[in-house]
Amino acid sequence: MFYFDPKLQYDVRVDVPDPRFARLLQQAIGGVEGELRVCLQYLFQAFGARGPARYRQMLLSTGTEEMGHIEMLATAVALNLEGAPGDLQDEAAQANPVVAAVMGGMDPRQYLSAGMAALAADANGVPFSGAHVYASGNLAADMYANVTAEATGRALACRLYELTDDPGMKDMLRFLIARDTMHQQQWLAVIEELGGQTGTLPIPNSFPVEEERREVSYDYVFTGMPGVEPPTGRFTAGPSLDG
Amino acid sequence: MFYFDPKLQYDVRVDVPDPRFARLLQQAIGGVEGELRVCLQYLFQAFGARGPARYRQMLLSTGTEEMGHIEMLATAVALNLEGAPGDLQDEAAQANPVVAAVMGGMDPRQYLSAGMAALAADANGVPFSGAHVYASGNLAADMYANVTAEATGRALACRLYELTDDPGMKDMLRFLIARDTMHQQQWLAVIEELGGQTGTLPIPNSFPVEEERREVSYDYVFTGMPGVEPPTGRFTAGPSLDG
Amino acid sequence: MFYFDPKLQYDVRVDVPDPRFARLLQQAIGGVEGELRVCLQYLFQAFGARGPARYRQMLLSTGTEEMGHIEMLATAVALNLEGAPGDLQDEAAQANPVVAAVMGGMDPRQYLSAGMAALAADANGVPFSGAHVYASGNLAADMYANVTAEATGRALACRLYELTDDPGMKDMLRFLIARDTMHQQQWLAVIEELGGQTGTLPIPNSFPVEEERREVSYDYVFTGMPGVEPPTGRFTAGPSLDG
Amino acid sequence: MFYFDPKLQYDVRVDVPDPRFARLLQQAIGGVEGELRVCLQYLFQAFGARGPARYRQMLLSTGTEEMGHIEMLATAVALNLEGAPGDLQDEAAQANPVVAAVMGGMDPRQYLSAGMAALAADANGVPFSGAHVYASGNLAADMYANVTAEATGRALACRLYELTDDPGMKDMLRFLIARDTMHQQQWLAVIEELGGQTGTLPIPNSFPVEEERREVSYDYVFTGMPGVEPPTGRFTAGPSLDG
Amino acid sequence: MFYFDPKLQYDVRVDVPDPRFARLLQQAIGGVEGELRVCLQYLFQAFGARGPARYRQMLLSTGTEEMGHIEMLATAVALNLEGAPGDLQDEAAQANPVVAAVMGGMDPRQYLSAGMAALAADANGVPFSGAHVYASGNLAADMYANVTAEATGRALACRLYELTDDPGMKDMLRFLIARDTMHQQQWLAVIEELGGQTGTLPIPNSFPVEEERREVSYDYVFTGMPGVEPPTGRFTAGPSLDG
Amino acid sequence: MFYFDPKLQYDVRVDVPDPRFARLLQQAIGGVEGELRVCLQYLFQAFGARGPARYRQMLLSTGTEEMGHIEMLATAVALNLEGAPGDLQDEAAQANPVVAAVMGGMDPRQYLSAGMAALAADANGVPFSGAHVYASGNLAADMYANVTAEATGRALACRLYELTDDPGMKDMLRFLIARDTMHQQQWLAVIEELGGQTGTLPIPNSFPVEEERREVSYDYVFTGMPGVEPPTGRFTAGPSLDG
Ligand SMILES: [Ca+2]
Ligand SMILES: [Ca+2]
Ligand SMILES: [Ca+2]
Ligand SMILES: [Ca+2]
Ligand SMILES: [Ca+2]
Ligand SMILES: [Ca+2]
Repeated sequence: MFYFDPKLQYDVRVDVPDPRFARLLQQAIGGVEGELRVCLQYLFQAFGARGPARYRQMLLSTGTEEMGHIEMLATAVALNLEGAPGDLQDEAAQANPVVAAVMGGMDPRQYLSAGMAALAADANGVPFSGAHVYASGNLAADMYANVTAEATGRALACRLYELTDDPGMKDMLRFLIARDTMHQQQWLAVIEELGGQTGTLPIPNSFPVEEERREVSYDYVFTGMPGVEPPTGRFTAGPSLDG
Repeated sequence: MFYFDPKLQYDVRVDVPDPRFARLLQQAIGGVEGELRVCLQYLFQAFGARGPARYRQMLLSTGTEEMGHIEMLATAVALNLEGAPGDLQDEAAQANPVVAAVMGGMDPRQYLSAGMAALAADANGVPFSGAHVYASGNLAADMYANVTAEATGRALACRLYELTDDPGMKDMLRFLIARDTMHQQQWLAVIEELGGQTGTLPIPNSFPVEEERREVSYDYVFTGMPGVEPPTGRFTAGPSLDG
Repeated sequence: MFYFDPKLQYDVRVDVPDPRFARLLQQAIGGVEGELRVCLQYLFQAFGARGPARYRQMLLSTGTEEMGHIEMLATAVALNLEGAPGDLQDEAAQANPVVAAVMGGMDPRQYLSAGMAALAADANGVPFSGAHVYASGNLAADMYANVTAEATGRALACRLYELTDDPGMKDMLRFLIARDTMHQQQWLAVIEELGGQTGTLPIPNSFPVEEERREVSYDYVFTGMPGVEPPTGRFTAGPSLDG
Repeated sequence: MFYFDPKLQYDVRVDVPDPRFARLLQQAIGGVEGELRVCLQYLFQAFGARGPARYRQMLLSTGTEEMGHIEMLATAVALNLEGAPGDLQDEAAQANPVVAAVMGGMDPRQYLSAGMAALAADANGVPFSGAHVYASGNLAADMYANVTAEATGRALACRLYELTDDPGMKDMLRFLIARDTMHQQQWLAVIEELGGQTGTLPIPNSFPVEEERREVSYDYVFTGMPGVEPPTGRFTAGPSLDG
Repeated sequence: MFYFDPKLQYDVRVDVPDPRFARLLQQAIGGVEGELRVCLQYLFQAFGARGPARYRQMLLSTGTEEMGHIEMLATAVALNLEGAPGDLQDEAAQANPVVAAVMGGMDPRQYLSAGMAALAADANGVPFSGAHVYASGNLAADMYANVTAEATGRALACRLYELTDDPGMKDMLRFLIARDTMHQQQWLAVIEELGGQTGTLPIPNSFPVEEERREVSYDYVFTGMPGVEPPTGRFTAGPSLDG
Repeated sequence: MFYFDPKLQYDVRVDVPDPRFARLLQQAIGGVEGELRVCLQYLFQAFGARGPARYRQMLLSTGTEEMGHIEMLATAVALNLEGAPGDLQDEAAQANPVVAAVMGGMDPRQYLSAGMAALAADANGVPFSGAHVYASGNLAADMYANVTAEATGRALACRLYELTDDPGMKDMLRFLIARDTMHQQQWLAVIEELGGQTGTLPIPNSFPVEEERREVSYDYVFTGMPGVEPPTGRFTAGPSLDG
């Protein structure tokens, strides 16, 4: 079960509210790269875990931390929607400044549906989907899924960082980016514990080798038309990665 | 921010695993009447709250409790998927009991995608959608939304109760049903604090009365064809409910 | 079965077309707070009604009225998309005024997909979902769902009212806001007929009281961390609302 | 605006309730080939119509008829869910006949979410999506879209007809199949009025011919690998269909 | 199976990158009228084809061509997102030109999620849905579905053509518009081979005529209120189209 | 651009058609772990590739191969739906064998919507979503996403392998499982080329280290309640994985 502390995990401060940035932050809340996804993904992996207890504990712990990241970002959205977004006003909209705010690039549903607050949706207002919660029942597959989530999540956070000049927002993102660094480490460390690539590949490694069509298991298939040169690289030469 | 305790809020026990019931439980996890929805709904209402701090605190508290209900139900799903579901076997499937299990009414994705664990989806495998998270920025509207969620949620739990004979599952549902009773009370108590129907209606009560087309604000419109008798009742007679 | 009259329920007039407002109106057509939802919700509740005939009749009647509201709003969208949306032109777009219109905040699909007409979608172009149609088979639960729909729907209409200066649009919204006032009354009147809170709570009230874990049915659970002060209010004290 | 008559357009009768057929009927309500789609498609085409008034009138008329088809099918679902579905009981489920019903192939959400009534969803419980409402603003394109809807809709109704032995259900489907026959005629008649294929092709026929890359406008492109024989037929030879 | 050639089917050139046009192009990639849909629709029709081999071959061929159109459009998106979109800068955004680009009407997810590339989504960022892939198993119904797809697809391409002044983009669209012309011809030619309207109607034509309620199969039903004049036209008079 | 060969990449044979297995195969076509996803994911990554040409070529090549896997699986679905599925008949359904087939665990839409063919949907009939197409513009992130897709895809194929006794189906899956083995190798080989974990972490590695809150970048945060023992492992000790 779960408990809350009304304090945020890290301070969230907005120096100059910007409703357009409030829209972009939605991607980090409800987008496929966002915190709702990692929160539920780690928790569902924990809820379904049948292996060693410490992995379940670790997943519960990090899933719970991510819930706090949703909270931070939703707070950031609300703060960015505060007050009159004067810098969005252009000639056409000056007669009605609220129109200007809604029209100037913000998500209209943050006002129309939520009264100036965050939605469980992405930067285009597409609702969060539970289909993004990966919990395959295979620990190695899940760890790669988690690395992917933290890699695309950190790429998103870095892109958001570029898109704001607000010192408060930049500071919050610096923290979230650092946590994503750690979480990439964390999931890869589990793969290392499981024996690394040689120990886990192919995933799942429980399928009997002799029932696989081994003659194509290490075969680089090139589907280019006759005359097109196949690319070369580590993926066409060298020892196999699973030993 | 949030914390976890590996203990469940209430004991979850399955006496005889039933993969078919595991499918039905999905509705209480990821369905529109389910725990994922109330959890996120109360938390997003809290994250966006601009009014008195105690409402925010109350919403955070109950949203956090609901996270624990997701955990209980996901645990119940995993337990119902344990072992050989022998009573699903029919003649055609006996040669391959796993086929029988998957074919006999369970959600195939609980095995194919999750390796015998819960999904963030409903009883038909439709993924949970963030569109079900209502946080309108209007406290009275949100309270009615929350009563609705707990009313349909309790109806669902009562229907699930009828659909199982398992003592462990019945006991868990008795607990969840009781919590839904309380939560219905809780949200209606807030409406009472806000002045009840006379104090809150029409929602939102901030819109200037004189700008509304008052001549149709209390007018029962009947769209039946000529000759069809309009129904009568409290909705066609008596004092208006907002005083 | 159903019939139509080519006249609208209430006059729809747009003085100065504004394609940006056409986008916002989509929320009232295909959004979760919109008319497509209430129309189908009331009709599906009617189609499934097994209780007293007059409730079925009432639901059919209001569902049919809402179909006319979809028609009014779709007409308003088409009118707002008429003609050259000159006030959206800025320097960069002047060479191609159509570009300006599409770029200036309108929903591009209203042109690309619909040739300047309404879509069955919300203000962000997210298609209407049948998942928003609540018809639980429990009359009290449905009435709370309907109050919620009309409360969030009226909040939406009031917000749209603020976002336009067009006299025609303001007049149409004044009418729709008034109808929402009435519909809130109407559904609450049914709850009063059913005995009010004491008569309907807990919903569903058919579940045997003795099978519920009564010791937590009226128990305010606080999930705050040690040291965090629980909020107090009507929800933590006073008689229970179901008598 | 719209009116209702509590009578159905055509009698709906179920001789032996079958909850499994109730599930299949959902496809004709909320599926892509279903009545919700054609109803909204014709109405939205009408709401956005800018051409001759009689097309708008015709679309309003047929869209309104389709609303009555939703009502018939939802009634059929409710009737199929009535009573004890005895023929679904197998050994394992006899102790709890409700379980048998829910497990035996019906849509569990028809009970869990709707209390034995129809959903705004398809035969797999996937919610109806507004994305299926085609109203392109081009009359000829819309007419082909409508023919497609009635062709796939009639194919669906014919398949449902094969899947039931119930005399009442067969009778209802005979009626709906006949209406689909008529509606196919109706939309093709409009294309004939518009000049048939020579008058309407290519759609849209307003694009200046000289701006099209005419050298590939009538060119059959074959993407088969060298050595694969291209198919021949009316589509590779003969006069072009637009004259 | 399939092969690729790194060359595009037709040259894609962007003279002046415009991130706003990159957003609009998304509709032609992942929208209901787009290339992803026709590609998968024709391929799934081919994969399920049970009739004469040459139809399967034709469907495979054109489905494969459409895959190349996705490639062309995705390339066009990437080119439109290249470089500094200077003409979007306004006063408020000049301090941070990237903000200007993202705010000025482009799809923020093309940057946030894809690092300046195309998404499998429409112009509003709504993900492509497999529900748009029609393959009914009835050849005539599928051909009408394909004509619809090419008619709305060509309408979309013509509208995009109006919305750009870029010579490269106009040239690419001229090619795609011409291919849509051909594909309309192609599917209608199959209907002609099948016997035209008299040979195919009603669809499906395998349903026994005597089991249909023939008395309403050619009956124009008008649902207007008493006093509303029914429209007249080819759809109310003249010989039936199926002979 | 693309070409096709009517031959399949690998022989698809079904010894005893089983409509229930046809439903399960849908997960491998349109599920999140399926071939539609990897096909579009690799192609969209290729279409947006801005780095070395050989990665683009490799992605095009493998994406094109995956298109052939969709074809194989859709063919397998059609073959499993052929003929009379006698072993599904039970007492109640014997009067109407088609009913038995549709009711006995198959996806009813494979018949109702597709006339006994594959859908662009998963094993529960949920349509494929373009939201599953990951192409982040960051090569390392994309490679981890691809490993995840092939790991969960191979887990799915192995689970399907357990669920069938059909020699033809087992043979086809042995081939697909082997290709997944290779593709896991292939994407990990690219990470090795990019410098392995030390060369790529943290992803993206272009963000300036000094702007990250480094004090929490390698900090294992435990959110357990006071008294709960934190788990230990490689993720709490040892050198960081990025050197
Ligand atoms: Ca995080
Ligand atoms: Ca709960
Ligand atoms: Ca209304
Ligand atoms: Ca119909
Ligand atoms: Ca095309
Ligand atoms: Ca594959």
